[in-house]
Amino acid sequence: MKIYTYHTPERVPADWQPDCAIAVDVLRATTTIATALAAGAEAVQVFSDLTELEQVSQQWPAAKRIRVGERGGKKVAGFDMGNSPAECLPERVRGCRLFMSTTNGTRSLERIQASPLVLAAALVNRAAVAEFVQKHQPETVWIVGSGWEGSYSLEDTVCAGALIHYLWGQQDAPLETLAGNDETIAATALYRYYQDDLLTLFHHSSHGQRLLNLGNEADLKYCAQVDILAIVPWQVSPKLLTKA
Amino acid sequence: MKIYTYHTPERVPADWQPDCAIAVDVLRATTTIATALAAGAEAVQVFSDLTELEQVSQQWPAAKRIRVGERGGKKVAGFDMGNSPAECLPERVRGCRLFMSTTNGTRSLERIQASPLVLAAALVNRAAVAEFVQKHQPETVWIVGSGWEGSYSLEDTVCAGALIHYLWGQQDAPLETLAGNDETIAATALYRYYQDDLLTLFHHSSHGQRLLNLGNEADLKYCAQVDILAIVPWQVSPKLLTKA
Repeated sequence: MKIYTYHTPERVPADWQPDCAIAVDVLRATTTIATALAAGAEAVQVFSDLTELEQVSQQWPAAKRIRVGERGGKKVAGFDMGNSPAECLPERVRGCRLFMSTTNGTRSLERIQASPLVLAAALVNRAAVAEFVQKHQPETVWIVGSGWEGSYSLEDTVCAGALIHYLWGQQDAPLETLAGNDETIAATALYRYYQDDLLTLFHHSSHGQRLLNLGNEADLKYCAQVDILAIVPWQVSPKLLTKA
Repeated sequence: MKIYTYHTPERVPADWQPDCAIAVDVLRATTTIATALAAGAEAVQVFSDLTELEQVSQQWPAAKRIRVGERGGKKVAGFDMGNSPAECLPERVRGCRLFMSTTNGTRSLERIQASPLVLAAALVNRAAVAEFVQKHQPETVWIVGSGWEGSYSLEDTVCAGALIHYLWGQQDAPLETLAGNDETIAATALYRYYQDDLLTLFHHSSHGQRLLNLGNEADLKYCAQVDILAIVPWQVSPKLLTKA
C-alpha cells in the first residue's frame, strides 16, 4: 500500500486515480457526515452549488429531507441545518437524507469522486475507516484534506496523520515504504506530536479560531474526539454517501 | 512578530508584502549560498533563466565568476558547478561571484524579491538568520520553502520549523501568538519531532531520495547539520545576495 496525502483538493494530481480516495474535513463536514450516518440518516448527498441542492432536494419527500448549508462557518439562511454534528441527533435525522453543501468539504469529495472507492473520514471515525481500508488492501490511497478556501489546515492534516498512523500500525513495513509523498510523513509526525492534545491543536488552528469566534466550542470538542464512531461513509454513486 | 510559513513559492499571497522574507531550499540552493558566502565568495546572483545567466556572467571577469547550474539534481553541461555545497571550498570561491540557477531555489528568491528585507536560510545557518531577524524585529515574516517543482518538501518545512523554534525561544509568547498561519505551527511540530534525527528525515524525503540515487549522500549529511555557519545571506538588490 502507498499512501499519498494532499493538504487541499487543489493539490491532487490530475493525471491518475488511486484505488481508494479518502476525503477529510474534520471541522466539520466529514465529522457531520459520519455523525449523521451513525445516527441513522439514510444517506448524505453533497453539492457545491446551493441552487442545485435546492432543486434536487425539492424532489425528495419533505419529511425525509434535511437541507444542510454552510458558508463561512455559518448556516445558510433558509436551510434546516448549518453543518454542526451536534444537530445530527437520531430523532432528527433517522431515515432522512441530508442534502449538504459546505464551504470546503464538498470540494474535496467532488475532486475524488471518480475513484473506484471513495470514503469520508474524520477523527471520530478514524479507526473504522482505517480498518475498512486495511480490509480492502488498495494498492494506492489518497487522503485529501479540505483546508480552508485552498489553504493548508492543521486539523485535516492531523487527521490524515491519525489515519496513516493507524494503517502503519497494521503493516510490517517502515513508514517511508508506506508513504507515497513527503506530506504523508509530515502528517504522521504532526499527529504523533499532538496526539494527546488534539483539542489544543484545534484551538490553535485558524479554522478552529474562526469557529470559536462564532461560539462553536462544543463542536470543536466533539470533532477532536478519536475513534468514537464505528461508521464508514462511502460513496455509492458520485457525491452520494451511505454507511458501508 | 507574526511568522507565515509557505511550503512553496506558489503558495505565497499576491496581495501583500512582509517586512522580512526568508527563502529556504535546504537541498541544496540556500545551503550552497550560505556555504559559498562563508567561504569568501563576493556575492551570489540568482537567475531562473540559464541563457540570461550566461549573458550577464559573460560581462564579469572570467577569473572572478563561477557559473552554478543545476537541473533535476544534476549539473548543467558546460557550467562550472552543479549546486553542491561541497564544491564551495575557500580556494575555489574566495573573491568570486557565483552566477546561479537551480531547479527550485531560484523561484522562491524571485517570488520574495520585492520585500524590504530578503534573507536566505538553511539548517547550516539557522541560528545566524534567526538572530538577525530577532535583532531587526520585523512585524511580519514570511518563510518560503522551495519544495520540488511546486510540491511540498519535508526538508524545507523542517528548516522553517527550526527557524521558528529558535525565534519562538527568544519571545515571551506562546507559539500560537507568533504563528501567522497553520503551516507555521505544523512546521514547528515537524522540527520538534525530528530535531534529533534530521538526516533520517532527509533520507525519507522524496528529494533526499533523488539526491541519494544520484550519489549525493555526502551532501545530504552536510545539509542536515544545524547552526554550523555564522552567515546571513541577504539581498542587496533583486536576486543579488551578499553576506550581511
